[in-house]
Amino acid sequence: MKLTLDDARTLAHEAFVKMGYHPDTLASPVAHLIDCELRGLNFAGLARLVSIAERHRKYGAPSQGLSVERETPVSALVAGHDQIGYIVGQKMTDLAVEKAQKSGLALIGGKDTWYTGMLSFYAEQICARGLVAMIFSNTAPWVAPHGGTEGRFGTNPVCFGFPFRDMPVIWDIGTSEIIHAQVLLAKRLGHILPEGTAYDKDGVPTVDPDAAFDGAFSVWGGHKGSGLAMMVQLMGMMAGSAHLPDDLSGFGMVIVAAKPDLLRDPTEFDAEIEAYSKAIRETRPVADGPPVRMPFDRSRQDRAKVRARGWIDVPDEVHALILDI
Amino acid sequence: MKLTLDDARTLAHEAFVKMGYHPDTLASPVAHLIDCELRGLNFAGLARLVSIAERHRKYGAPSQGLSVERETPVSALVAGHDQIGYIVGQKMTDLAVEKAQKSGLALIGGKDTWYTGMLSFYAEQICARGLVAMIFSNTAPWVAPHGGTEGRFGTNPVCFGFPFRDMPVIWDIGTSEIIHAQVLLAKRLGHILPEGTAYDKDGVPTVDPDAAFDGAFSVWGGHKGSGLAMMVQLMGMMAGSAHLPDDLSGFGMVIVAAKPDLLRDPTEFDAEIEAYSKAIRETRPVADGPPVRMPFDRSRQDRAKVRARGWIDVPDEVHALILDI
Repeated sequence: MKLTLDDARTLAHEAFVKMGYHPDTLASPVAHLIDCELRGLNFAGLARLVSIAERHRKYGAPSQGLSVERETPVSALVAGHDQIGYIVGQKMTDLAVEKAQKSGLALIGGKDTWYTGMLSFYAEQICARGLVAMIFSNTAPWVAPHGGTEGRFGTNPVCFGFPFRDMPVIWDIGTSEIIHAQVLLAKRLGHILPEGTAYDKDGVPTVDPDAAFDGAFSVWGGHKGSGLAMMVQLMGMMAGSAHLPDDLSGFGMVIVAAKPDLLRDPTEFDAEIEAYSKAIRETRPVADGPPVRMPFDRSRQDRAKVRARGWIDVPDEVHALILDI
Repeated sequence: MKLTLDDARTLAHEAFVKMGYHPDTLASPVAHLIDCELRGLNFAGLARLVSIAERHRKYGAPSQGLSVERETPVSALVAGHDQIGYIVGQKMTDLAVEKAQKSGLALIGGKDTWYTGMLSFYAEQICARGLVAMIFSNTAPWVAPHGGTEGRFGTNPVCFGFPFRDMPVIWDIGTSEIIHAQVLLAKRLGHILPEGTAYDKDGVPTVDPDAAFDGAFSVWGGHKGSGLAMMVQLMGMMAGSAHLPDDLSGFGMVIVAAKPDLLRDPTEFDAEIEAYSKAIRETRPVADGPPVRMPFDRSRQDRAKVRARGWIDVPDEVHALILDI
């Protein structure tokens, strides 16, 4: 069904409140889910509310707020105490900006959290303050390493962002062939998975979402992609995650933020990024191929389009499940 | 032909001296080339001496040494003044270790350099001091972005390292399907390239090394890998590289080093890495597949094997070309 953006925001806000969240903590989580919808990433948008409610039914609500540990002028660790990642990630982002603006460079860890969301949501905020961002987040071991069939790391997103006026260059990927939210949505909607994206509990390739949850998802990018996923896992472990955290619990996250002028005059760097973006978009395409894009071009265009039209489309099944909350 | 490790070292050292390098600057460059040979990466080993000599014939020898610019307690920029990357990278590594040990965190840039080598050579040194490393190096635009057929970034290696006793976990990849040194070696030896690794100057797929040099190499990993290659390019640009640097000139490099105890107790982190490495190596393999490895396992094993046997095998053509120097 069609929802105006205002109605979608209200729906998300009210669902969070029903789940026990304090209204004062919800500006970022609600904006996060709506941003996913605007960018066409509906599996990480309002549908997430249903997964969050399920997660609370399984583990109960967290009993305390965030705390900051091990703080130095260039670093801090945010202890999540089982708070959702949207809130932990936002706190980490605020600290990363504050410390990097003061010291030039910052390393912020987050631990004891879950559902950190789309890392580009944080990277955009960091880039908007003129800073470069690198962000890593590990999740439960749903994904098998290259050559293996048992989960050994999460869907482990990684994101880099470089500031450029109101068009930061942002690269945000999941390191698995398929992400957890996509498998969950396929399960809810009764769809099958694409070929080659999962193994069942016996290590046999499968397209059944339930069998994939009992087995493991496939990693993206062969041995190179598998290595990257492992690096994200190690980053999460450095922030306090167990090496194989429980399902939707105890995830870690790391943000590195830096002022580009530590290394180069910002005006010069800006001019190079402008020239580079132009050169990329003007690359001769492969035979009969579409124009080459910069990372985030499509997200930015989709978002502008959906904002202009003013409504999003939410599957009826998902809408009904949210109303149940 | 077979060379003992000592003879290989002496050969490399003398070739560098003949090219005008001061003997005092050669410990790291020689160790770097020999390490590539030990790890079976012969295209980046002694064969590089031939490419370095060619590069000096084209551009002449650099007229001044390194200088350090824009220094802060957490950062520095090493201006290479056209010195080879092996020397610039080593200086950056030393600064990264020094600053990260003092401040916890360091961002070091390098500019105006070329041939930065295997980034794991630097990562191993940083990890040996108990630090985490992230290293990026851009090169000349030999590689086409996904969906394009003209060079827009280099073979752009990226490397992450996590300290773990004498077995750091190191992931070091090139973001192109084929690396520059492999194409050069194929050209020297009269070999063709693997299918799908290059385009000619008209954008038509090719396996001819000369045509590939006139055209572009293919990027690894589709749109996700292409985005990663672009992030490495932007890192190099932040350190002072032009967005599309000239052939073998004006490359940039970035090292981030961090003390893990900014975020976690080192003993705890060490125990988690140990348990994780075990879990990875014990992952059930795909049907009839070999055991799953940790990144760098093969390099470490190959190196131990070659060290024990005490000699390396250098193609006669390459040996003759080095003697020509």
